[in-house]
Amino acid sequence: MLLIKIGGGNELNWEYIASDLAQLNRPFILLHGANERMAQITEQMGQQVRMIKSPSGYTSRYSDQETMDIFLQAYAGVTNKRWVELLQRSGINAVGLSGVDGGLFRGKKKDKIIGFVEGSESKPRVIRDSYTGNVESVNTELLTMLLNKQYVPVLTAPALSNDNEVMNIDNDRAAAVLINEMNITECVMLFGAPGLLKDHKDETTKIDKLTTAEFEQALQYADGRMKKKVLGAKEAFENGLETMYWGDGRIEKPISSALAGNGTVITK
Amino acid sequence: MLLIKIGGGNELNWEYIASDLAQLNRPFILLHGANERMAQITEQMGQQVRMIKSPSGYTSRYSDQETMDIFLQAYAGVTNKRWVELLQRSGINAVGLSGVDGGLFRGKKKDKIIGFVEGSESKPRVIRDSYTGNVESVNTELLTMLLNKQYVPVLTAPALSNDNEVMNIDNDRAAAVLINEMNITECVMLFGAPGLLKDHKDETTKIDKLTTAEFEQALQYADGRMKKKVLGAKEAFENGLETMYWGDGRIEKPISSALAGNGTVITK
Repeated sequence: MLLIKIGGGNELNWEYIASDLAQLNRPFILLHGANERMAQITEQMGQQVRMIKSPSGYTSRYSDQETMDIFLQAYAGVTNKRWVELLQRSGINAVGLSGVDGGLFRGKKKDKIIGFVEGSESKPRVIRDSYTGNVESVNTELLTMLLNKQYVPVLTAPALSNDNEVMNIDNDRAAAVLINEMNITECVMLFGAPGLLKDHKDETTKIDKLTTAEFEQALQYADGRMKKKVLGAKEAFENGLETMYWGDGRIEKPISSALAGNGTVITK
Repeated sequence: MLLIKIGGGNELNWEYIASDLAQLNRPFILLHGANERMAQITEQMGQQVRMIKSPSGYTSRYSDQETMDIFLQAYAGVTNKRWVELLQRSGINAVGLSGVDGGLFRGKKKDKIIGFVEGSESKPRVIRDSYTGNVESVNTELLTMLLNKQYVPVLTAPALSNDNEVMNIDNDRAAAVLINEMNITECVMLFGAPGLLKDHKDETTKIDKLTTAEFEQALQYADGRMKKKVLGAKEAFENGLETMYWGDGRIEKPISSALAGNGTVITK
């Protein structure tokens, strides 16, 4: 099984991605983000993105109920259904599901976070109304049922906590659990760069090949967002992945191109 | 099979509905609206609801791409997933789908609408960028597959046009097609009133029982929104429905109460 993971940046070319997927001729699961759409709707609704900073300097999105409403609008609403529409138009029988549906992505919600809201607070406190957690299990029955009938699952955050609450998750960690439970051996990750770069400001410094043994070294090149992706990749390989292709989501035939080794190919 | 149709008004009590559904002990499909959430998000995003008025006085929502983005946020995003969350918490294995997913609701999009935008235009013109149409078919395979595995489908607009475009639909007409294709014999409709009222401003004027032969008479009581529901009911009975229960979505045990005949019961 192949997993296609598509970033939530505005620079990705959806048309190129969809027409390439239509030529793929093999079963796949699509997992997408929506971070730039989320930022745009948050701004349009007159809200502000609030980040929680922990005493150790780690930052995470303050995901209270109001934020999670906007999260659902951006991820499970407009982005997920516009992907399904485009894939249907490309001849792919897509079905969009969030991690909430049928408890597709489930995990433990963090009881509390110690930290302060950046910009408006200065002292750490106990925050209990931020709905975030990690995916621990996947509803493989639901996905297998769809795949067996030739539907293409189009998946997105958020997830459902073990107490059945909508919660924010990290998509890269969700991918790693999906890879484990669905026996996925190959994964194509598309984002707004040609691959993993030695210098993230210079697209000519792409790394062509990488082995998992070289991950530690790769972590030192990676900037903040990329670092999370490298860590996600590490977990994916521990979970049975054989090859990961990082490719450019802005170019024509982005998936074929990544599978042909034109991005960064990571092997065990 | 039983269809539960839940209006999109803020006055409905979601907790009462969910805990009553958990006691139901029979398979059902849920179809929900989100009109008040849609109005709220539209306002919060600084947009205005624009209505098209036809030369004959018929009005419909101007559903351009931007409006349909907000529609997806409100219906398929936050409202659909918050219903799934609440049902999961009540022990019901709900899966939320829009009419777009797997082409669940499909139909013909109107090529053009003759009319003018109320408030900002005065002369009728040809409007081609309003994405509206009528549901003509339902993906029964997808629904049956879910129902066979004891999932509860939680459905909502919009639909997919025959050319694979997201389009606005009338939920009551979608219900009528669902009733036909899924062999649904009973339908409970919950909204913010105790039933069909002779005088829509006076809740003591509820009609207890109605036969389809009395529909013409009922149409004369009904106000604008209710008129559409009576017409939708008419179509549902033509499509094989045996009993329709109109019930109060604001009270405890709203579904048991409606099924016990405490709202308006319509029979052939």
